[in-house]
Amino acid sequence: MEEGILVRAQTLKAFVARALQRLDVPAEDATTVADILVAADLRGIDSHGVARLRRYVSGLHNGSIKARPNIRAAYESPCSATLNGDSGLGHVIGKYAMELAIQKAKSVGIGVIAVRNSTHYGIAGYYAMMALPYDMIGCSLTSARSRIVPTFGRRKWHGTNPIAVAVPSGKELPFVLDMATAVVPDGKIEVYSRLRKPLPVGWVINEQGEPDTDATDVLMRMRKDQGGGTLPLGGQGETFGGHKGYGLGLLVDILSGVLSGAGWGPLISDSGWANLGHFFAAMRVDLFRPIDEFKAEMDTMIRRLKAEPKAPGHDRIYIHGEKEFESTQERLASGIPLHPLVIEDLQKIAAELGVEYDL
Amino acid sequence: MEEGILVRAQTLKAFVARALQRLDVPAEDATTVADILVAADLRGIDSHGVARLRRYVSGLHNGSIKARPNIRAAYESPCSATLNGDSGLGHVIGKYAMELAIQKAKSVGIGVIAVRNSTHYGIAGYYAMMALPYDMIGCSLTSARSRIVPTFGRRKWHGTNPIAVAVPSGKELPFVLDMATAVVPDGKIEVYSRLRKPLPVGWVINEQGEPDTDATDVLMRMRKDQGGGTLPLGGQGETFGGHKGYGLGLLVDILSGVLSGAGWGPLISDSGWANLGHFFAAMRVDLFRPIDEFKAEMDTMIRRLKAEPKAPGHDRIYIHGEKEFESTQERLASGIPLHPLVIEDLQKIAAELGVEYDL
Repeated sequence: MEEGILVRAQTLKAFVARALQRLDVPAEDATTVADILVAADLRGIDSHGVARLRRYVSGLHNGSIKARPNIRAAYESPCSATLNGDSGLGHVIGKYAMELAIQKAKSVGIGVIAVRNSTHYGIAGYYAMMALPYDMIGCSLTSARSRIVPTFGRRKWHGTNPIAVAVPSGKELPFVLDMATAVVPDGKIEVYSRLRKPLPVGWVINEQGEPDTDATDVLMRMRKDQGGGTLPLGGQGETFGGHKGYGLGLLVDILSGVLSGAGWGPLISDSGWANLGHFFAAMRVDLFRPIDEFKAEMDTMIRRLKAEPKAPGHDRIYIHGEKEFESTQERLASGIPLHPLVIEDLQKIAAELGVEYDL
Repeated sequence: MEEGILVRAQTLKAFVARALQRLDVPAEDATTVADILVAADLRGIDSHGVARLRRYVSGLHNGSIKARPNIRAAYESPCSATLNGDSGLGHVIGKYAMELAIQKAKSVGIGVIAVRNSTHYGIAGYYAMMALPYDMIGCSLTSARSRIVPTFGRRKWHGTNPIAVAVPSGKELPFVLDMATAVVPDGKIEVYSRLRKPLPVGWVINEQGEPDTDATDVLMRMRKDQGGGTLPLGGQGETFGGHKGYGLGLLVDILSGVLSGAGWGPLISDSGWANLGHFFAAMRVDLFRPIDEFKAEMDTMIRRLKAEPKAPGHDRIYIHGEKEFESTQERLASGIPLHPLVIEDLQKIAAELGVEYDL
């Protein structure tokens, strides 16, 4: 955990929404973006929270993100759609798309939505979790700016391309997998860079294709496209399954990018937000078995798994999503810790936009 | 590559089909199983090929696998079904289920099938690839006998639980991801055991939760449920993303096991074939964009990716499925290499069943 100043979630949301409205984002959409950014901070995924507000503000300023996009279907069927996000804010497009997937699943059982012409949508898990109150399994994938080196390559190709799947349970917490298909997300490398800590060997390689540990240098080279990049889940080569992480990353690029008609691989660069793609799915559990039966069995599985014997030095086996739920409870109660550099940036944004700063 | 005796694919298929028919498996089903087993050998996935015939023969002998199952739908909708495999041969059930998924996708765009009461179905990729001739994306998941240790645990819980997804392309080979969510599949540990080679550190842990390298010992302990097991993709702990591989494995258990009403985790043990579950999906590409456009863009992506600069010591970047397609071409031409121990076992099976041995 980095040091931070504690800020109340409600105060932070209101601030973000005010800032975005000043940039011509409609009130409802500004609230959506604020809600999803602060959800990331609450869940402990600080790299995808308000620390990124600057990028959205810049995008709205320079016109690469539209404040009032015309989100429309390019293709549609009772169980599917391809949406054109018209370069709106990714969060607004993502929420719209997942709501459409859920609506189609309500009607025919399954809804699958591919999205083109979108921008960074924040945490993938947020959209997957939208399916939970409807007793559906939710899925959300997205392409991301080029960062990850394919197996046997030495230059970044695809992005950290996360996979998020949420599954309802009964009395236990739901299963919420939300994972980058990289060995490590961008945000973690940024944290090591800020703390000037050496990276573990096996996270990144340099332009020669050799292991590297200098976080700041690696980030700089990735931004300038000077070779090297982050390794896929499973690491370098095939011995520990690096080709699997690379394969999952490619799959996300195909479903989010090629299927929707968005960009893929190095077409998604740091220099623009051009044509990011997403993929969403919602599926009713009761297509397959009665929902109460399913939930009871999820609970049984989770309880048995958590009761398994632990590895030395550990007293707990986690189910995916559990840490994030606990972080949310804790941060709702005591506040969200914001890094001094983030606070400084939010103050600047407030001054630039002429909105009240009250954090 | 292990040493082996070369056998023609057609001869091997005919032999396997003959053996199964002798065990009361209908001719068409016996051909299905033979085709899928030999497809594994052709693709170079020797651990899932005819080397496993003994297990199916034993299962049919002892009644844990039914030669003439009554495969039926427990629940069904226009886009989905839950099938009860009635403890038939997993290959027969898998092919039936994937055909049903494709039929539903032809009719409404997407077909999703969950399966309970099945047995080992061989290579997951076979079923995913069945979608390709229909210009669909195919997906196949399966639970498997307990092998993998969850993050922070020290005892095997879920199986190697593979994820297979096949995506059509144009002139290039299709993308066929077929990966265990473990750091390494069972079959590879068996190969190290046969060759008496030490395992790389990071594949398995022992009953104390410490890294181990003795393949034979690890396999023996896993079979006897004496603690330890194989690590998930990403390895031990969270530093290199072991919690992600564990999460993907759990997800496969949920979709194959909990959703269908099959077993999950340690309920699937070495002692029985009881209630294995699968999950299949087929989705028409043209729901999302015209198929010719999609295929052309897959080709462009594949060509650009393969043209990327290579890591030191490598002259090629692979697309998933490429190695297996090349292995198939080579083995169709020059024969399938079978390990002497496998040959010996097939000879024994022939003698026991009184079928002609002509390999």
